[in-house]
Amino acid sequence: MKIGVIGAGQLGRMLALSGYPLNHQFGFTTKSNNEPSSMLGLVFNENECQNSAESIMNFADVVTYESENTDVEIIRNISKNVKVFPSEKSLFISQHRCREKKLFDSLNIPCAPNQKVNSLNDLRLALNNIGFPAILKTATNGYDGKGQFVIHSDSQIDKAWDSMNGVESILEGFVSFKRELSLIAVRGIDNDHKYYPLVENIHHNGILRKTIAPANRIDHNIQDIAEKYMRKILDELDHVGVLTIEFFETDKGLLVNEIAPRVHNSGHWTIDGATTSQFENHIRAITGMPLGDTTPIHNCCAMVNIIGKTGDTNSVLKMPNTHLHLYNKKERKDRKIGHINVNAGSVDELQKRLSQLKQYLPK
Amino acid sequence: MKIGVIGAGQLGRMLALSGYPLNHQFGFTTKSNNEPSSMLGLVFNENECQNSAESIMNFADVVTYESENTDVEIIRNISKNVKVFPSEKSLFISQHRCREKKLFDSLNIPCAPNQKVNSLNDLRLALNNIGFPAILKTATNGYDGKGQFVIHSDSQIDKAWDSMNGVESILEGFVSFKRELSLIAVRGIDNDHKYYPLVENIHHNGILRKTIAPANRIDHNIQDIAEKYMRKILDELDHVGVLTIEFFETDKGLLVNEIAPRVHNSGHWTIDGATTSQFENHIRAITGMPLGDTTPIHNCCAMVNIIGKTGDTNSVLKMPNTHLHLYNKKERKDRKIGHINVNAGSVDELQKRLSQLKQYLPK
Repeated sequence: MKIGVIGAGQLGRMLALSGYPLNHQFGFTTKSNNEPSSMLGLVFNENECQNSAESIMNFADVVTYESENTDVEIIRNISKNVKVFPSEKSLFISQHRCREKKLFDSLNIPCAPNQKVNSLNDLRLALNNIGFPAILKTATNGYDGKGQFVIHSDSQIDKAWDSMNGVESILEGFVSFKRELSLIAVRGIDNDHKYYPLVENIHHNGILRKTIAPANRIDHNIQDIAEKYMRKILDELDHVGVLTIEFFETDKGLLVNEIAPRVHNSGHWTIDGATTSQFENHIRAITGMPLGDTTPIHNCCAMVNIIGKTGDTNSVLKMPNTHLHLYNKKERKDRKIGHINVNAGSVDELQKRLSQLKQYLPK
Repeated sequence: MKIGVIGAGQLGRMLALSGYPLNHQFGFTTKSNNEPSSMLGLVFNENECQNSAESIMNFADVVTYESENTDVEIIRNISKNVKVFPSEKSLFISQHRCREKKLFDSLNIPCAPNQKVNSLNDLRLALNNIGFPAILKTATNGYDGKGQFVIHSDSQIDKAWDSMNGVESILEGFVSFKRELSLIAVRGIDNDHKYYPLVENIHHNGILRKTIAPANRIDHNIQDIAEKYMRKILDELDHVGVLTIEFFETDKGLLVNEIAPRVHNSGHWTIDGATTSQFENHIRAITGMPLGDTTPIHNCCAMVNIIGKTGDTNSVLKMPNTHLHLYNKKERKDRKIGHINVNAGSVDELQKRLSQLKQYLPK
């Protein structure tokens, strides 16, 4: 099939690399001619085409998108002519924190206390209900910890609201969590479901640095609960494709933080670590192919993001059971330009490898 | 780096799929706009460019080729301006059976008795020396068993020579072999070497149907001998990139059949079965990157070619530990249009899977 992707970043790139062996072809909407996916299919440059969305609609048998920040209006228009997966509903809800929270509430899925904030006065009222500390977040377009402000006391309220630049926001109660976990799943057109194991995500300055897969010390129970929440969300959205849930693991169990209607940075380990990668499974799902086995191949895997600078690539390539994935992006502070997957037979071996790897990457 | 590939078939396609994650870019010389590699990089169409070889030379930092039937003259010209790996010498020798045999003799590597044949009279003289049965083969351009004639008796001599259409040929003594094995290795610019395990190849009507990796019941001794022969050839050719040797396994040990200066159909299992695939290792070698670990990930692997017709793809995709690789080629009798990799924990499990797979593929 011909697959149209809205966006041409690293996710589109890895979708294409996994989709060609299944005989699919790819087209991308781009903003420049040098994006990560530019060489991997046809490109419809937004600055050169009069209507790149229309062009991709004419090219594609099915359309998907890289980001939850995709314009819903565009997806709605494309959907009138070509199938789009995940559908408009998944996109509409997951691109807005208030809509997400409403979904979680309606499905009895626990999340942090929260309240919509559209003014300084709203913020004061919300803080009265939720209390300190709390986090003020833009309702849309947040990524890598951007558009967030932690409020510890009254004195920060004005500054917090100013930092939102007047956009629609949400106040969330601060969750004291042990760690962040995420669950990636895929749902097919025929309602088949497959789940990857819960993974542990380690952030620094709001940016994902490392994922450990599977997460260490996970009860069978917790995996089941996470899958139960996932299933409710997938079915409610009638979702087709990969969906990711980010969880806070707390003393009282799992709280859902947010969802993404797409392949996710915390699932990049699956390229070298699972029988079928998240990318291949997304492609299988949206093209109506049977879903692939999500079982890990190795006992322990890790994904380490390459952020800002590439580091000592040659030393990385010499490491055993280590796989390099670069995105053809220029080096720039805080930019994700690639990742490294490491596989190991034991937790100790994995930790040893990760310590070694640290030497070769920028601090 | 920018990698130029002469040819745009499935080998170029799989080289590109493995090379993008290492941040390389690809260009291909093509004969049409719908070849297996056409969507995976820039294309220089021989029918549209005045000189596609010159175009690819201008594009590329390094050039490689898909086939040992590539014109040596083209490679020689490109080499004057851009590095080409494997070099002209590897290509020149491996594209001609008589030159190959001379190389094996000079390195004391055992092969079948053989004699150059350029006329009917040559053929008679050669048969006097070699005896019946013997195989007459075109010296160049043979593939999938084409250009070969088995001669059992005097009465077939005229017909055999006629079938060669007057081209340069070679008569080889018929080898009674137990099975065909192949060894794939890679040599880097810095003279580093890595070897995959010997694999067993099963042919039907001269076309490779199936590879079992590693080959069953292989002495450590045989692997060592095969690697010793390989090393001699790699070093003599100063070869950079992947090289394949096809062996006959006989009661008296290994005889070399032929070599190919490239990734090989019998190495396609490495995509899902080895830590680093033959494709990634070829790309690493020709771009001066460190070579990757060649260790198998699973106890037993098999590669099954999809020939002529695609078969029941959906059933194949539902099988555990099974990976589909299609080449975007139209169905046609005896044409390799894809392959399937199967991984298993034991020989029995692998055989069970292969029996199941058989149902889904054309006979």
